[in-house]
Amino acid sequence: MKIYLDCYPCFIKQAIQAGKFVTDDEQVIKEIVDGVAKMLPDLHPGATPPEIGEAIHRHVREVTGMRDPYRKAKDINIEEAKLIYPELKGFVETSDNRLLTAAKIAIAGNIIDYGTNRDFNISTEIHTLIDQQLGIDNFEEFKQALSNARSVLYLADNAGESVLDRILIEEIKAPVTYAVRGIPVLNDVTHDDAVTSGIAEVAEIISSGTSAPGTILRTCNDDFLELFKKADVVISKGQGNYEALSDIDRSIFFLLRAKCSVIADDLGVEDGDTILMGLNTGN
Amino acid sequence: MKIYLDCYPCFIKQAIQAGKFVTDDEQVIKEIVDGVAKMLPDLHPGATPPEIGEAIHRHVREVTGMRDPYRKAKDINIEEAKLIYPELKGFVETSDNRLLTAAKIAIAGNIIDYGTNRDFNISTEIHTLIDQQLGIDNFEEFKQALSNARSVLYLADNAGESVLDRILIEEIKAPVTYAVRGIPVLNDVTHDDAVTSGIAEVAEIISSGTSAPGTILRTCNDDFLELFKKADVVISKGQGNYEALSDIDRSIFFLLRAKCSVIADDLGVEDGDTILMGLNTGN
Repeated sequence: MKIYLDCYPCFIKQAIQAGKFVTDDEQVIKEIVDGVAKMLPDLHPGATPPEIGEAIHRHVREVTGMRDPYRKAKDINIEEAKLIYPELKGFVETSDNRLLTAAKIAIAGNIIDYGTNRDFNISTEIHTLIDQQLGIDNFEEFKQALSNARSVLYLADNAGESVLDRILIEEIKAPVTYAVRGIPVLNDVTHDDAVTSGIAEVAEIISSGTSAPGTILRTCNDDFLELFKKADVVISKGQGNYEALSDIDRSIFFLLRAKCSVIADDLGVEDGDTILMGLNTGN
Repeated sequence: MKIYLDCYPCFIKQAIQAGKFVTDDEQVIKEIVDGVAKMLPDLHPGATPPEIGEAIHRHVREVTGMRDPYRKAKDINIEEAKLIYPELKGFVETSDNRLLTAAKIAIAGNIIDYGTNRDFNISTEIHTLIDQQLGIDNFEEFKQALSNARSVLYLADNAGESVLDRILIEEIKAPVTYAVRGIPVLNDVTHDDAVTSGIAEVAEIISSGTSAPGTILRTCNDDFLELFKKADVVISKGQGNYEALSDIDRSIFFLLRAKCSVIADDLGVEDGDTILMGLNTGN
């Protein structure tokens, strides 16, 4: 997905938010924000949002010297998700359509986002999202593709959400490889976060090698690219991975929640909709 | 009021919005936005939001060659406000507290804002705001100050809102001077807009001389500054004038609606609150 001009205010917001995660020093936050403002005029046409995301968070690391500003937030989110895992797992066990319920839980997990806007109960909110009709619903194709698959590549998104990814992975019969970011960026899942989330018990964890908050292929390592090419099914979680891969020419299933009007418009859905969309999957 | 870092995303939004008012050409809008992004790192400490507002809208004029991008929107808003004027005037006529009702109508008029977000009925919304308790209520002082005043200077804000300013002016016994921007900026009231709004029939209209969307004194002309110094009562309408004058050392009454969390925090109220606040008025 290309960068829309309407994304620009959000890049500045991300810079402010990242800064506030790291420090109370307004001068330091201003240095972060000023740096991001300077990047905007130089964005190359065709860049995707995770590319500027990568630059923003590299800049945050450079200015603050902190390698993983979201460390604490991620730990909290993983703990939080672990608390609701048993109940949601039970919900799948008693469901008429286990795979659909598990997929919806994995999509809904996307609301676990670095402890902000916590004026809602996560468990309640996730149940609301599970009850909600999918804004784009290619579940039948998804089910079909998984039933024939001998290998599944699962592109991870946020820490915390990762705990609920496990619920979906447990419903998939084929071996799953769970691809995480190469280094900490934003609140995205790294290798350690995936292990803490319990993913190692159900999937092989690999690093895509990217330092962007989205799977930008030209920034990924060869092992990942080989897998990305060969996997029977690729499941892409979250907005950042969608933004990086929405124009790709291989088959892929995007599972995400449209969290802003820009991406909702790009997908032709409403802001807040949950999405299970196949790209190049024959639909 | 100083510029908070949290204002930065909004400056970019303003640039996008102003661009979209003028053209559909994304390249032109990008040129406007890029120009504003470049301004942000150079903002001097102590600058107020209307200062960057002035620079943004000057930049829009330079890039597009259009002197008054909000012309059409302002005309629509003035017409719209004129349609509800008789009913609101009638509401004052039958009110137990004419001055308070008129002041609340003038404050509520601030929701008439260049035709955006029109998913509400203006008349209904204004009545809701009139019924709402003031977030800061210095009405008694305001009433007292006006009863003793021999001259009142009224600092205008948006076109459209200006029609409802007339309702408040009609309740003031002392002669009122209505100060407008020197040139068109954003959707703020100019001399012509004030005349179209019917203000010439109830007040003397003067230009403050500023080209900023707020009364930044160092950008105002001598005649205005003389009046600003001598007027018994100064009434400042809207957020832009508050931002420019919140640290001033003369007595002044701010009538506005807090339209974002930054200004609400600055005022110590809730986002959306209506405000009638005296500064240096002895409260």
